[in-house]
Amino acid sequence: MNPYQAPLKDMQFLLEDVFDAQNTWQEIPELAEMVDMDTATAILDEAGKISRDLVHPLNRSGDEQGVVHQSDTIITPDGFKEVYQQFSEGGWVGLCGDAEYGGMGMPKMLGILVDEMGYSACNSFVLYSSLTAGAALCINAHATDELKQTYLPHLYSGQWSGAMDMTEPHAGSDLRGIRTKAVPQDDGSYAISGNKIFITGGDQDLTENVIHLVLAKLPDSNGISLFLVPKILVNQDGSLGEANGVSVGSIEHKMGLKASSTCVMNYDNAKGFLVGEPNRGLVCMFTMMNYERLAIGIQGLGNSQAAYQMASEYAKERLQGVAAGVKPSGASDPIIVHGDVRRMLLTIKALTEAGRALSVYTGKQLDLAKYAEGDVQAKAKQYVGLLTPVAKAFLTDRGLDATIMAQQVFGGHGYIRETGIEQLVRDTRIAQIYEGTNGIQAIDFLGRKVTGDNVATLKMFVAESVEQLKALQHTSDADKQAVIIRLESLVEVADYINDNKLSQPALINASAVDYLDAFGFALYGFYWLLMADKAHGHSDSEFAAQKHYVAQFYMAKLLSKSDYHLSQVKAGDESIMSMPADLF
Amino acid sequence: MNPYQAPLKDMQFLLEDVFDAQNTWQEIPELAEMVDMDTATAILDEAGKISRDLVHPLNRSGDEQGVVHQSDTIITPDGFKEVYQQFSEGGWVGLCGDAEYGGMGMPKMLGILVDEMGYSACNSFVLYSSLTAGAALCINAHATDELKQTYLPHLYSGQWSGAMDMTEPHAGSDLRGIRTKAVPQDDGSYAISGNKIFITGGDQDLTENVIHLVLAKLPDSNGISLFLVPKILVNQDGSLGEANGVSVGSIEHKMGLKASSTCVMNYDNAKGFLVGEPNRGLVCMFTMMNYERLAIGIQGLGNSQAAYQMASEYAKERLQGVAAGVKPSGASDPIIVHGDVRRMLLTIKALTEAGRALSVYTGKQLDLAKYAEGDVQAKAKQYVGLLTPVAKAFLTDRGLDATIMAQQVFGGHGYIRETGIEQLVRDTRIAQIYEGTNGIQAIDFLGRKVTGDNVATLKMFVAESVEQLKALQHTSDADKQAVIIRLESLVEVADYINDNKLSQPALINASAVDYLDAFGFALYGFYWLLMADKAHGHSDSEFAAQKHYVAQFYMAKLLSKSDYHLSQVKAGDESIMSMPADLF
Repeated sequence: MNPYQAPLKDMQFLLEDVFDAQNTWQEIPELAEMVDMDTATAILDEAGKISRDLVHPLNRSGDEQGVVHQSDTIITPDGFKEVYQQFSEGGWVGLCGDAEYGGMGMPKMLGILVDEMGYSACNSFVLYSSLTAGAALCINAHATDELKQTYLPHLYSGQWSGAMDMTEPHAGSDLRGIRTKAVPQDDGSYAISGNKIFITGGDQDLTENVIHLVLAKLPDSNGISLFLVPKILVNQDGSLGEANGVSVGSIEHKMGLKASSTCVMNYDNAKGFLVGEPNRGLVCMFTMMNYERLAIGIQGLGNSQAAYQMASEYAKERLQGVAAGVKPSGASDPIIVHGDVRRMLLTIKALTEAGRALSVYTGKQLDLAKYAEGDVQAKAKQYVGLLTPVAKAFLTDRGLDATIMAQQVFGGHGYIRETGIEQLVRDTRIAQIYEGTNGIQAIDFLGRKVTGDNVATLKMFVAESVEQLKALQHTSDADKQAVIIRLESLVEVADYINDNKLSQPALINASAVDYLDAFGFALYGFYWLLMADKAHGHSDSEFAAQKHYVAQFYMAKLLSKSDYHLSQVKAGDESIMSMPADLF
Repeated sequence: MNPYQAPLKDMQFLLEDVFDAQNTWQEIPELAEMVDMDTATAILDEAGKISRDLVHPLNRSGDEQGVVHQSDTIITPDGFKEVYQQFSEGGWVGLCGDAEYGGMGMPKMLGILVDEMGYSACNSFVLYSSLTAGAALCINAHATDELKQTYLPHLYSGQWSGAMDMTEPHAGSDLRGIRTKAVPQDDGSYAISGNKIFITGGDQDLTENVIHLVLAKLPDSNGISLFLVPKILVNQDGSLGEANGVSVGSIEHKMGLKASSTCVMNYDNAKGFLVGEPNRGLVCMFTMMNYERLAIGIQGLGNSQAAYQMASEYAKERLQGVAAGVKPSGASDPIIVHGDVRRMLLTIKALTEAGRALSVYTGKQLDLAKYAEGDVQAKAKQYVGLLTPVAKAFLTDRGLDATIMAQQVFGGHGYIRETGIEQLVRDTRIAQIYEGTNGIQAIDFLGRKVTGDNVATLKMFVAESVEQLKALQHTSDADKQAVIIRLESLVEVADYINDNKLSQPALINASAVDYLDAFGFALYGFYWLLMADKAHGHSDSEFAAQKHYVAQFYMAKLLSKSDYHLSQVKAGDESIMSMPADLF
């Protein structure tokens, strides 16, 4: 088995030919001075090498060894500490961080491709830095200048890490019930007491300090506020001081992600600092959540890519059976001759590459939402809101599909730990659950993003996509029409749901997952036509041919999944809601 | 979490009301003297208790502890040996075994329900007895009287176990390449030399002896023959003699099934006895394979049932969020109020109960194929052939779907080992792979069973099902018609494939999985209408109501999956076959 190879050509193609990164960046002063396509290419190249040579070698051994909780320390598997230090020193943790505080100021459109490589190489490893970047984003957006000065440079440098402390045993998807308390102190700080569970990277031995962003309630308030709670207190001069009242109660034993610590955290009058306004903690946390939700979508993407590489390589090497229509002789063919194996590989490939397009496009909208102005910015913010739950849920659901299909390509060898593909299944499964389950994402999508503004954003997005499709030069009208019909059906059904959501209050919750899937499969049709069209005449004729073949496969085989899921939505909620609970 | 509870009412309903077990058994002299509904009920009741009280408690600890290979011994987890002995002494290993050799002679129609309970309770445990029963079936069908006398009583009693030694590193789905050799000896036995991999229960510390059924080649022959190779040789008087040249090279470390030993077996001039005719080993092995394929389907069924119980119980207890349309107040509702959670639970329930109907029906056909005469027997043999690959693939694919959906109901808690649902995902995953991958099953189904006889068996099966549907008394014409349309479309498409299979040689391989899925979802529609109709007026009105609600859910939401998969088949194989292999 060859080591992981970053799909650099596909990544550059999306940036350069499909989503026009160069012009996008040049039009934004903050980005124009930091990055152009040459810089981006160099960064991707370097990230590919690090992912392959440093991070990927930790993947299997990290799974075997796992994190260990010993007295009050979390011990990460062999090699994690050394590689994390090299990774940090390379500036990768702060890649998209604010340059004012020591970040590298790179656009998200580029950053998510680096994230993808990390997740392809080792899920557990990259979670530590991903949570750190997310925490920094939240602090940068909502904290005081003093907190930013104190914490951001150390987070971007990777010396300290970040964690996101939300869930409690009785408050997961529904945070109203959290019990962690924050009592104001005379010095302006707060004393935090309570417990949290499922805290990814809640502690580890990689960094000197862990900066927790903790949701808690002020006295006599039902509102939820956000606090920055360092594991070790920071002195005035920036040096590390005393231990804070933050400790790890235990770590969870999980299906996968065994090298990532998932901690029960205890706060015993821990010193915390308010981030943002009192009782507005969820709003602040959502800055981080949106970032994390996209990042977790990228986990699904990275895992799909890794699964594809493993399975396609295996299928080209493993000899078993003979091609259909050929008389059985002594010699076996590689299993890639078999239609069913090709079907699985093409499905993974088609979904992965369209998923990468969705990711880069969403990254571009995040950049425009941050840096652009006026209408462009306003529209980008709407699109970020619309696409983030889709990216999170659809990419991670397809991530499980991809790893399961890849495992099937391996046959019996896929069930054995040695080949590594079963680890990918176990590691990617959590991505459908954490940072808001995919059901929650779908309800957010259909309930808030699609019908919340009476379908206005969706209509704008669809109209724009239809315009783009119509303008394609090398795409058949039949193909364009096939996608346009699906996009317009989505609007039609959204209008129906919007009109009936008050009279049928369960309709959104019961239809949301199918609606999101219907949207995802139609959107991927759009991206495939776009990619095949833009690849037309590509200097690498094999690359162009590949995009053509996979686009044709998508149109013939996968686009109609959108119809199936939309038919589910149209079938309504009565059959779902009518059986009394005690008959379950 | 409550322990496992066997769904006895559902099982009795299928036997008694849906598939008329009592009359079926009374018409067959061999069965009439062994079993009636009272006996069957008593057996199910007792099997339920054993599964809950003896077998299920081994499940979690068995996963944690795993099997250990120490010098030349395989050590099963604590408790396995004691429980296996009790299980054997209860006659459960020989439940469906030939009464002439000490089996209990029970019908398969009943036996598969006992199998289901075992798989719900502990996959790893029940594999040891399932392989033994399968080996006994093969020996009973093909071996000499002398071998039967020597081996069957000890297999049925559970004193000895059985294993099925087929796969070699380079010969999995394609057995033509096996290299294990069998050299004839002067005493009429054979000297077996070679290696096998992936041998489930290849060795363990539960039984005194392990009886291997080994595929090997005779000198100068490319044909494959079958040999009975005991781990310990048996003396003339039936006592155990010297060790044979059979040893375990190593055991595999797997994604799941950690308490089941998966062995690399080495044969060093091991003494073996021919079973069946020389060079006809695959035909003999298929007797066992068909049995095992159905049994593995039942693994998917049992795991779906266990997943449903865990998830529905959790959904009724876990408080999170409030019902749609209700103003958020302080009190949270159990998550079963949420449409998306209900959708997942109903999907699992609908697929599990229809899966049980398919299993019982297939079991009934196995009984008729074995015991009936004339046309009834001939037709039953055709139906066994038709339905076995469907039962294996469709039940196990739905088994993964069920466990994954149940895990999703648990949210973050589903990823933690403690709740047990993630183990079910890991344990059930193999069922889609072993005993012939589900891709292989689908190709067998479409290539041999559906088009192999120019669609004759399928047409007979569909015509009979349509007749049965039309005769239902308490079912709407619209519902009947919805299923009939799907069944008839399956015939139509099968005719098309049959007509074009020579000119498009890749068509079957490329379409097979979708065709099997299209068949499965249509067939489950048939079973749901049948069940809801037969439940009409049931003495337990809640039971009748439940069947009605779930049937309506199936008709509204899941039946149309058949259309989607059939549309995939209709989209042909061109988009699958056209991309050159080096572009993958």
